[in-house]
Amino acid sequence: MAELNGNCLVSQSGGPTAVINASVAGVVGEALNHSCIEEVYGALNGMHGLLHEDLVDLAAESQQAIRGLRYTPGAALGSCRMKLKKPQDFERVLEVFKAHNIRYFFQIGAEEALESAAKISALAKEQNYELRVVGIPKTTDNDLSATDHCPGYGSALKYIGTTVRELSVDADAMGQGDLVTIIEVMGRNAGWLAAGASLAKRRDHPNDPPHLVYVPEVAFSNDKFLDDVRKVLKREKHCVVVVGEGLVDKDGNYVAVETTSTDALGHAQLGGVGEYLRDLVESQAGAKVRVARLGVAQRAAAHIASKTDSEEAFLVGQAAVLAAVGGESDKMVTLVRGDNDVYSCDTGLTNLADVATTNKKLPREWINEDGVSMNFQFYRYATPLIQGEVTVPFDNGLPAFIRLAKESVDKTLPPYET
Amino acid sequence: MAELNGNCLVSQSGGPTAVINASVAGVVGEALNHSCIEEVYGALNGMHGLLHEDLVDLAAESQQAIRGLRYTPGAALGSCRMKLKKPQDFERVLEVFKAHNIRYFFQIGAEEALESAAKISALAKEQNYELRVVGIPKTTDNDLSATDHCPGYGSALKYIGTTVRELSVDADAMGQGDLVTIIEVMGRNAGWLAAGASLAKRRDHPNDPPHLVYVPEVAFSNDKFLDDVRKVLKREKHCVVVVGEGLVDKDGNYVAVETTSTDALGHAQLGGVGEYLRDLVESQAGAKVRVARLGVAQRAAAHIASKTDSEEAFLVGQAAVLAAVGGESDKMVTLVRGDNDVYSCDTGLTNLADVATTNKKLPREWINEDGVSMNFQFYRYATPLIQGEVTVPFDNGLPAFIRLAKESVDKTLPPYET
Repeated sequence: MAELNGNCLVSQSGGPTAVINASVAGVVGEALNHSCIEEVYGALNGMHGLLHEDLVDLAAESQQAIRGLRYTPGAALGSCRMKLKKPQDFERVLEVFKAHNIRYFFQIGAEEALESAAKISALAKEQNYELRVVGIPKTTDNDLSATDHCPGYGSALKYIGTTVRELSVDADAMGQGDLVTIIEVMGRNAGWLAAGASLAKRRDHPNDPPHLVYVPEVAFSNDKFLDDVRKVLKREKHCVVVVGEGLVDKDGNYVAVETTSTDALGHAQLGGVGEYLRDLVESQAGAKVRVARLGVAQRAAAHIASKTDSEEAFLVGQAAVLAAVGGESDKMVTLVRGDNDVYSCDTGLTNLADVATTNKKLPREWINEDGVSMNFQFYRYATPLIQGEVTVPFDNGLPAFIRLAKESVDKTLPPYET
Repeated sequence: MAELNGNCLVSQSGGPTAVINASVAGVVGEALNHSCIEEVYGALNGMHGLLHEDLVDLAAESQQAIRGLRYTPGAALGSCRMKLKKPQDFERVLEVFKAHNIRYFFQIGAEEALESAAKISALAKEQNYELRVVGIPKTTDNDLSATDHCPGYGSALKYIGTTVRELSVDADAMGQGDLVTIIEVMGRNAGWLAAGASLAKRRDHPNDPPHLVYVPEVAFSNDKFLDDVRKVLKREKHCVVVVGEGLVDKDGNYVAVETTSTDALGHAQLGGVGEYLRDLVESQAGAKVRVARLGVAQRAAAHIASKTDSEEAFLVGQAAVLAAVGGESDKMVTLVRGDNDVYSCDTGLTNLADVATTNKKLPREWINEDGVSMNFQFYRYATPLIQGEVTVPFDNGLPAFIRLAKESVDKTLPPYET
């Protein structure tokens, strides 16, 4: 493979995670090790920046700032939910790449973003423009099938598990067999996040909260739910329910859809299942109910990020650069779990084209017969992902996140009319 | 003052805080230093335990467990929202005290619980039963007027400030001048918690999030709110709004009351103001809105508790014992701030009878003219309260809170029929 000299560009897309910036740090740190890479650029707000030639010089950032990406949530370069559709959009992006001699393109994101990256790569081939494109996975939802798990997932679990423990001890103090706490977590069509709340149980304490976990992989029934809740309230001072937003009934319909609107990518706007369950319990079981909807905090709580997750997010950024410099293109970096009893994790590569095709569900055989708790296979899978704490510096009592200087790269093209 | 020999009892009441257990640790640790105190008991679930003679032996707990109270949220002894009303209830509590030779009674709580404690004390005097009663303040709401601030408040602020920073960087990554984040915080009739979100701004960065803070001390107007939001969206990529649940309009009516029901103490059930503001923005300003309702996590997030707050909560527990052993009764321990520029805090005492009479509001002169931001007086007040981090041990990736063994004290009285 001949050495390819030129500039590299990294872009962030979709909902941020607590560790998505660690992947940028991995890309930047590794890119600077290779003399074939001259400039290290970032795109502002993902595809937006690529269309409008809004690029920043990441090599000009202080080392302190790049290190700070390892504990700063959000997407430091800005993100977007834009999906490129029109042929001229792809043409434009390639034009921007050519104008800035971008030869290495690292796209951090999930399905849609990686699909767009694959299309840009295909167009470059058509035009004989040598470009290496490597995707870097991120999603708290953990539903990409090609990788053992996704960067961002472990930190979301650590936050959810911590919050479940804290809300549970509070409820334990206030309950007298009459208090139900409902915690609604994200996860569009897969129960990875809801299932992960089970980590809040202590080892060998199956009756610990969360007492009931409902995931989209198990058809939901009002009657069984009420029965489950009543049984727990009889046994415990209170009942903690964790529920995934994308819960479906036996016909596959969402139990609760907040509005009829869809987001920019055409997904139904979920949410509201917590309130739906509250109404059920209040009207049918006569217990007091508290609803917590963890929302965006699940993907932003860097102060309680998993060190394992943060390090793996950094690692996939590094691995993307190493792969591209080594001649790979049209790949996504994956996380590959070692076979040993002691957890280990290495990186691999998968074809970018295959990433968007499947939605990884929680395996049914990892869920107990009762449909509301996880078995040892899930614990074996998820427990290693939340290990270790990231050290976040505090300034005047609060986490001190970094901000990039974002030194603009001079534009050379006329403005783009979308 | 003659030495009073006998047993002591500590009780927790009302909503827990992240540090209410630290006050129990302070009581237990200090009580064991004094030979006039024989047994150290706790009441299970506050007044419930006092009525039903459900007492536990706190001296029998391991030292590890008592130390663990300093980082464990919830109320380790159990709490309740019961207010004693009937004369026979007070008679019963005193009977329980006599049966167990309780001579020192430490009530951790806010208005209602301390009022009940004062009444028990009055009844003891009537019956010539020597009893010393000292109250220990706790409330995240920070609305007790006799004390500079309340244990529990600083940790709630640290959690709120952290979450505001994290949600803000996430929104900053996703916004294009069209995204509004609404964060609803607790605080029945006072804006202490909402105002505290302002600590998330960096020093000398008045345009940092949270951009708009609405407190019950300033009459709310839909028009001004929409105008405020529009201005921020023009200036920034996104707008972060923090709102106290007890917001009122110019006529003093709650802007949003979730249900017509009241809690066990007759308070209106607030909440829903976040959704109210969302509807306003969506219909009138055409921006995307995210609502976060921090709920119970505000008082339970021990993993991000303020060290200053935790230490002061321990200190007020110690001070209560020292005061009672020294002959004081019918007092509540207060926190007294030093006069120096460098923050210092000592304890004082106030009459228990005076505690419940006033509801401390955020001073109007600490709020800027714009009505949506705080001035230096608030920062000077609140900043010291969130300093330092409590070290919480982690076990297998999650905070490992302690559980008390709760060894029962033998009952000697017939059951109580309420």
